[in-house]
Amino acid sequence: MSILIKGGTVIGPTGPYAADVLVDGETIAAIFAPGQAPDGPEVIDATGKYVIPGGVDAHTHMQLPFGGTAASDTFDTGTKAAAIGGTTTIIDFAVQRYGEVVPDGLAAWHAKADGNCHIDYGFHMILGGVDDDALKAMDQLVGTEGITSFKLFMAYPGVFYSDDGQILRAMQKARDNGAMIMMHAENGPAIDVLVKQALERGETDPINHGLTRPQELEAEATSRAIWLASVAADCPLYIVHLSASKALEQVKAARDLGRNVFAETCPQYLYLTLEDQLGAPGFEGAKWVCSTPLRSKHETHRADLWQGLRTNDLSVVSTDHCPFCMKDQKELGLGDFSKIPNGIGSVEHRVDLLYQGVVDGKLSLARWVETIATTPARMFGMYPRKGIIAPGSDADIVLYDPNGRTRISVETHHMNMDHSAWEGWEIDGKVDTVLSRGEVISRGGEYTGRAGRGKYVPRSLSDYLM
Amino acid sequence: MSILIKGGTVIGPTGPYAADVLVDGETIAAIFAPGQAPDGPEVIDATGKYVIPGGVDAHTHMQLPFGGTAASDTFDTGTKAAAIGGTTTIIDFAVQRYGEVVPDGLAAWHAKADGNCHIDYGFHMILGGVDDDALKAMDQLVGTEGITSFKLFMAYPGVFYSDDGQILRAMQKARDNGAMIMMHAENGPAIDVLVKQALERGETDPINHGLTRPQELEAEATSRAIWLASVAADCPLYIVHLSASKALEQVKAARDLGRNVFAETCPQYLYLTLEDQLGAPGFEGAKWVCSTPLRSKHETHRADLWQGLRTNDLSVVSTDHCPFCMKDQKELGLGDFSKIPNGIGSVEHRVDLLYQGVVDGKLSLARWVETIATTPARMFGMYPRKGIIAPGSDADIVLYDPNGRTRISVETHHMNMDHSAWEGWEIDGKVDTVLSRGEVISRGGEYTGRAGRGKYVPRSLSDYLM
Amino acid sequence: MSILIKGGTVIGPTGPYAADVLVDGETIAAIFAPGQAPDGPEVIDATGKYVIPGGVDAHTHMQLPFGGTAASDTFDTGTKAAAIGGTTTIIDFAVQRYGEVVPDGLAAWHAKADGNCHIDYGFHMILGGVDDDALKAMDQLVGTEGITSFKLFMAYPGVFYSDDGQILRAMQKARDNGAMIMMHAENGPAIDVLVKQALERGETDPINHGLTRPQELEAEATSRAIWLASVAADCPLYIVHLSASKALEQVKAARDLGRNVFAETCPQYLYLTLEDQLGAPGFEGAKWVCSTPLRSKHETHRADLWQGLRTNDLSVVSTDHCPFCMKDQKELGLGDFSKIPNGIGSVEHRVDLLYQGVVDGKLSLARWVETIATTPARMFGMYPRKGIIAPGSDADIVLYDPNGRTRISVETHHMNMDHSAWEGWEIDGKVDTVLSRGEVISRGGEYTGRAGRGKYVPRSLSDYLM
Amino acid sequence: MSILIKGGTVIGPTGPYAADVLVDGETIAAIFAPGQAPDGPEVIDATGKYVIPGGVDAHTHMQLPFGGTAASDTFDTGTKAAAIGGTTTIIDFAVQRYGEVVPDGLAAWHAKADGNCHIDYGFHMILGGVDDDALKAMDQLVGTEGITSFKLFMAYPGVFYSDDGQILRAMQKARDNGAMIMMHAENGPAIDVLVKQALERGETDPINHGLTRPQELEAEATSRAIWLASVAADCPLYIVHLSASKALEQVKAARDLGRNVFAETCPQYLYLTLEDQLGAPGFEGAKWVCSTPLRSKHETHRADLWQGLRTNDLSVVSTDHCPFCMKDQKELGLGDFSKIPNGIGSVEHRVDLLYQGVVDGKLSLARWVETIATTPARMFGMYPRKGIIAPGSDADIVLYDPNGRTRISVETHHMNMDHSAWEGWEIDGKVDTVLSRGEVISRGGEYTGRAGRGKYVPRSLSDYLM
Repeated sequence: MSILIKGGTVIGPTGPYAADVLVDGETIAAIFAPGQAPDGPEVIDATGKYVIPGGVDAHTHMQLPFGGTAASDTFDTGTKAAAIGGTTTIIDFAVQRYGEVVPDGLAAWHAKADGNCHIDYGFHMILGGVDDDALKAMDQLVGTEGITSFKLFMAYPGVFYSDDGQILRAMQKARDNGAMIMMHAENGPAIDVLVKQALERGETDPINHGLTRPQELEAEATSRAIWLASVAADCPLYIVHLSASKALEQVKAARDLGRNVFAETCPQYLYLTLEDQLGAPGFEGAKWVCSTPLRSKHETHRADLWQGLRTNDLSVVSTDHCPFCMKDQKELGLGDFSKIPNGIGSVEHRVDLLYQGVVDGKLSLARWVETIATTPARMFGMYPRKGIIAPGSDADIVLYDPNGRTRISVETHHMNMDHSAWEGWEIDGKVDTVLSRGEVISRGGEYTGRAGRGKYVPRSLSDYLM
Repeated sequence: MSILIKGGTVIGPTGPYAADVLVDGETIAAIFAPGQAPDGPEVIDATGKYVIPGGVDAHTHMQLPFGGTAASDTFDTGTKAAAIGGTTTIIDFAVQRYGEVVPDGLAAWHAKADGNCHIDYGFHMILGGVDDDALKAMDQLVGTEGITSFKLFMAYPGVFYSDDGQILRAMQKARDNGAMIMMHAENGPAIDVLVKQALERGETDPINHGLTRPQELEAEATSRAIWLASVAADCPLYIVHLSASKALEQVKAARDLGRNVFAETCPQYLYLTLEDQLGAPGFEGAKWVCSTPLRSKHETHRADLWQGLRTNDLSVVSTDHCPFCMKDQKELGLGDFSKIPNGIGSVEHRVDLLYQGVVDGKLSLARWVETIATTPARMFGMYPRKGIIAPGSDADIVLYDPNGRTRISVETHHMNMDHSAWEGWEIDGKVDTVLSRGEVISRGGEYTGRAGRGKYVPRSLSDYLM
Repeated sequence: MSILIKGGTVIGPTGPYAADVLVDGETIAAIFAPGQAPDGPEVIDATGKYVIPGGVDAHTHMQLPFGGTAASDTFDTGTKAAAIGGTTTIIDFAVQRYGEVVPDGLAAWHAKADGNCHIDYGFHMILGGVDDDALKAMDQLVGTEGITSFKLFMAYPGVFYSDDGQILRAMQKARDNGAMIMMHAENGPAIDVLVKQALERGETDPINHGLTRPQELEAEATSRAIWLASVAADCPLYIVHLSASKALEQVKAARDLGRNVFAETCPQYLYLTLEDQLGAPGFEGAKWVCSTPLRSKHETHRADLWQGLRTNDLSVVSTDHCPFCMKDQKELGLGDFSKIPNGIGSVEHRVDLLYQGVVDGKLSLARWVETIATTPARMFGMYPRKGIIAPGSDADIVLYDPNGRTRISVETHHMNMDHSAWEGWEIDGKVDTVLSRGEVISRGGEYTGRAGRGKYVPRSLSDYLM
Repeated sequence: MSILIKGGTVIGPTGPYAADVLVDGETIAAIFAPGQAPDGPEVIDATGKYVIPGGVDAHTHMQLPFGGTAASDTFDTGTKAAAIGGTTTIIDFAVQRYGEVVPDGLAAWHAKADGNCHIDYGFHMILGGVDDDALKAMDQLVGTEGITSFKLFMAYPGVFYSDDGQILRAMQKARDNGAMIMMHAENGPAIDVLVKQALERGETDPINHGLTRPQELEAEATSRAIWLASVAADCPLYIVHLSASKALEQVKAARDLGRNVFAETCPQYLYLTLEDQLGAPGFEGAKWVCSTPLRSKHETHRADLWQGLRTNDLSVVSTDHCPFCMKDQKELGLGDFSKIPNGIGSVEHRVDLLYQGVVDGKLSLARWVETIATTPARMFGMYPRKGIIAPGSDADIVLYDPNGRTRISVETHHMNMDHSAWEGWEIDGKVDTVLSRGEVISRGGEYTGRAGRGKYVPRSLSDYLM
């Protein structure tokens, strides 16, 4: 069956142009200059709308076990919410914890996702420590499993933490097999000292989560990861959830040298702050406990991050979607901020929240599409299948209505959360229609997709390297 | 009449994809996934070829008067050579000299180009000094003439030189009307001292042209232009023919701050050197006398420039095409290097020379296309009409054969020069077919275009600003 | 006659130590550990006092002609005020204006100073443009006149302005004969555009003097001077009256490269601001019109300058003493800020004002002495005769009372001004006793010096170069 | 008894001046201008000689246990050699290893040194890990033991290594009690991976010691220490034995921010290289195995370090004196470079080796004295008792003969080593006479000191902080 998306303005990574998009089956068959398309196919009227590639969220944690509980979105609920919000591909993280075997971890995540996803998905692999077996598994995952990126942690000693020797070994392996090393860059051992001291002083409120994770300890770890990658002959390195000005400076300096160092940020760091959200009265701030933490509004973090998106020192916007309900989950940290499960849920809102940056004059249309779709697809080996409106690409397409309006609320969102981190926020734009592999799964607020239709996408090596 | 370019690999600014391109009349009617195009149109077999937008050379000087002579390519000979080399649009410089009236200068250049061009063309305007009339003319040219960029000189006192007060005024005007300021960034007054001193010491050979223009005086002027633009509320600034590492550092620093500062480099700076070319025995080096000059091979200029292209600290590759024959022209400087007309002719070879960077692993296919076509079109307000393979865009298309081979020589080139700056260079690739606005004007070495078919393209404001 | 300064704490450039200082005639004969000095000489009790070398003010403009009037302090009144304030040496600027002959300018200044000074003095030479004669004069002044530093201006076109070619030539000469180039680093041609535009808009109040001299135009000129010095094979360069954070960054960057680039700041930039002083109501701000101008309190200039003094990125504190009375002088600029004579008078207060930095924890005792006495003496070839408490040095000695208190006011100051730029300021310390070449010329508020006792000090080349 | 050092040129930290120095008992009684001293005392003729404060070597390891053996110099042999070489004070390192108690470690070192030293000495304390007891001990040592600096290791896991949490806690303590944290800045866990890999590849020669410790891992650790110090509210930080350009860049950047970050380098890094020494044929390179290692002569390390000394980005030159004989000691690493005891012996040669820098035009006389004597004394709380020629200071004085000549050889040196790291080096200068607390202990090559005359010097807090 064919569909013609007619009359819209396609936003390519280098700018907008008027065109009609013909979808045939699961892929884009052709793109026509206005008036050039043949009659025949079902027509979706895109007049006045932006036609963009479906979003690619390169950082989600559906049903991630964390601190005795698990992220509240399943692959079913989470990918449905993503779809409604204009994201048609996620890359989630399969997990190996220290002492576990990598292939088992991957199998467990496939089991969770298989048959439950509304949209296509891939996996990164978290390595909870690096030993000879893990290094062998890296080769295998790159070679046969379509997993070409591995996440390490410089924080969470005893859980996910890799020491610098382990990190170096994984980077050497990645240099050899072409994989990307993703890094949670926070100095965990130092943070743990500050957390312990805060608790000893009786400072237990959620805001202390942020106060005990100063930006210097994110910047330091970012810098260290970059140095280690240089020792590993410039292994490709991707800093996840970069939140702070001083960390961004480290990435900039490396990029100025032409290094293959990349970074993502997340909507929460672009809009929310330590004082206004994490410091909300009582235990309310727990909603915004995530790591890296929200940063101070009295510093220039948010402006610097927006600028980083403009200059491509920040290449990708992901959500780090990792939702926990207040009840029974976030509440585990009542009286001890260090026990609050870490995570914010935004998978449904990323496309909208970044579009607001366009409205506010902080981002061009081209950079909007590039940071939320094209670059993540290129970065993680899904291009040109994903991330672009091009003939032959998967027909993952969003019609975005710049004249629409979106109000975010727990009353209306589709994520499995008992609150919204973005309660009451209004966006000057709206996801109108979503196609996933040629199928209209959301239109005018009506959702017609279903669990299980999303497929696993094995990934190639990154084609974004310099 | 319709043409289907079939079986090729389209190189978009974000990467390659297999697609068939349907040309209808002067524009691209549609792009099809392989096998999706209707039968009917004439087919050009692009199997094994890259299908790229025709090159946009944003810096040429056809028949420019200089030092008592004039650049040897007319708009006829120069644009034909460009076309054969895969460039389908040039932006030349109309000139106002000090004491002249801007509109007269523009009219003169229209007169030279009109009816003589083989490909489409636009104009920048050179301001040889800035006064109240020139400032008024800037508004008029932006408003009604399709000229949205103005070039100033920090060198050549008494000819083109603007002092810092004049520069500031032009920048303020550009900030207000949205135009781009292009800058020849060399400290002319200081260079003139060094030139005079060299001549007094009897150092008259061509290499002294380079030795008297040390990179510090390019870096300084680049830095100064950036400071002045900041005083003019971040007026958009584009540094032409950047040649040196230290100048690049200035641009990088500004771009790290999110400033609207851009730069181009030229093929000569990427490949040729002070010692090997400008220092050739006898008067031979005169062939490579251009300003900014070729830089020392003992420093890191070339590697740094390639890196700058990868990191987008250099956004555009232009030629600064300004050819002079040795006989009667370059020879004016026998015995006095300062009298050698400045310029190198490369308009025919830019697409090839940069493709060699792809072969050599210095540039991705995507960056090749971006730097030679897409970004110059965006930078100077010709996008999406030029610079992209997209439905609705002008059908300026090049089929590039990665299995072909190009040997450059005065024997075979089409520029009106009695020598080649690139004599004997071999490229691992070849321009196979060139379409300009839907017309095949060059194919398999046979040229079928004609003078006068090229049209003036009024330009919009840049859409490349951050 | 011998004097023993007994019981005090000598402040050396590396720190304090208890010692007794024996003065014999005009020089320091010996320094004794406490209790080791012989009986006999007249004793000055320095118990509880700091014993420091007399201040060296390397930047004053006594009776400088400027804008149709002349600085109100003569060498008599100005050096007396200096002496009372603890400064025992000044280096004033002899002036050659464009069209004048350098030796004539020098002779004129000798004539003004000779027989009128209360303390020792040297001269820098201002070159109002650079030509062959001026270059020859540079050699002569270095060789036979004891003048080893030459000041150029990047501002004041038509008065003192040198273009970049002239600057380069002077720097080459200085590189050859070992002299120091001092630079007034402001981009005059650009500033003049801003001044004209402000006046055309009717913005005539004194604050516009500062608003039309943005720090970017100081930073730019500073940067440019540094680049030009590098072209002149790293000619020693000294930036005068550095006022702004961004200018300081330029100096820092050069110094990080080990370059012989130095800078001074002045008390006004450490304490006063654009808003609070230059923006005082009505015409009051005229008191603080000086160039470079006072900077905004909303930026980090003052903190950065204090830090620069600590890190030695700023090596010297001078006054740029150039006083004008409000009546008949500053008032020339009523209704047109550009006609206000430029200058602030502080020669009497520098030692005190910087000591306040010690009290406030911004400067160590050692850096206090180093920046106001030792380093200027070393920088300009007067060391070890001046600037240090050492045997054999001139007995220019100040006893400073940290328990004293100084209140600054036009009522009590000794400068020939009808107002004070520091009216009402209070210092937690006090100049107690001043010796100049062994003679007590000020003690406990009683002045016993006299005009004519000060001698001209021919200077050697700087010994401060790296 | 009094001694008059007559006719010499005293080198103060800000430059030379002619003066006679009167020593009375153990201290300097007075300094006289030439000809001003009374007759009577014994005269030492210093004509033609530099009179400088005795050297202060702030980094030695006499009889340090390491890898199953111990440094070959005892406090007796080592301090005698130091004295002969013009160093009159050392600060050695008392050691606490992990699991030991700090006061016991200190007591053990006092026992080794007491009664055996030829010159005065102090101690830093090495903390082999940081726990509650160690933190308490820090307060005690600062408060009552005259130990105000504590060294931590980012290398040597399992021996001296502190993790980042431990480092942070020690820094917080130092911030509170005013102590200085000294850091061995190398990323041990990453280095250990490289060492293991090299050995597995059969690369066992001494040069691999250097190849497995790339400068990036020194730069990284230096950067990390600086970040951690900033989290500890700018705790004073002193990087020991800085060897590499990229590490120096980190220190520079911190110092540009006005941070209390300091660094020392050692003579070996200023003169010796990875290729020429560590890469000597066979096992010869073992002589130069030290950590941080010698760096490549193909990079700019040596030039950058000399420049750092000029700019005071490197403030101190120490030796890191830690000698091991080839026989039975260095030979432990035959066939396995990682088992070679780490260390070079230079305590006798530091004053000479740095004077050669003066001769070679790399350092001024003032900086020579400052880096080898004045600054280490100030840095570590021994000033003005040590490190300066000033009345009241200890009469630790060296007469240095610029016309002498020193040839270094195992045949003639006084260190307890069976080889010299500097065999055959010749210095254009010579230590002529050495006084320690007023006693001539070495003169014209005759040594007249004795073990036991050296005293322990309790130290104050640093007075070198900004």
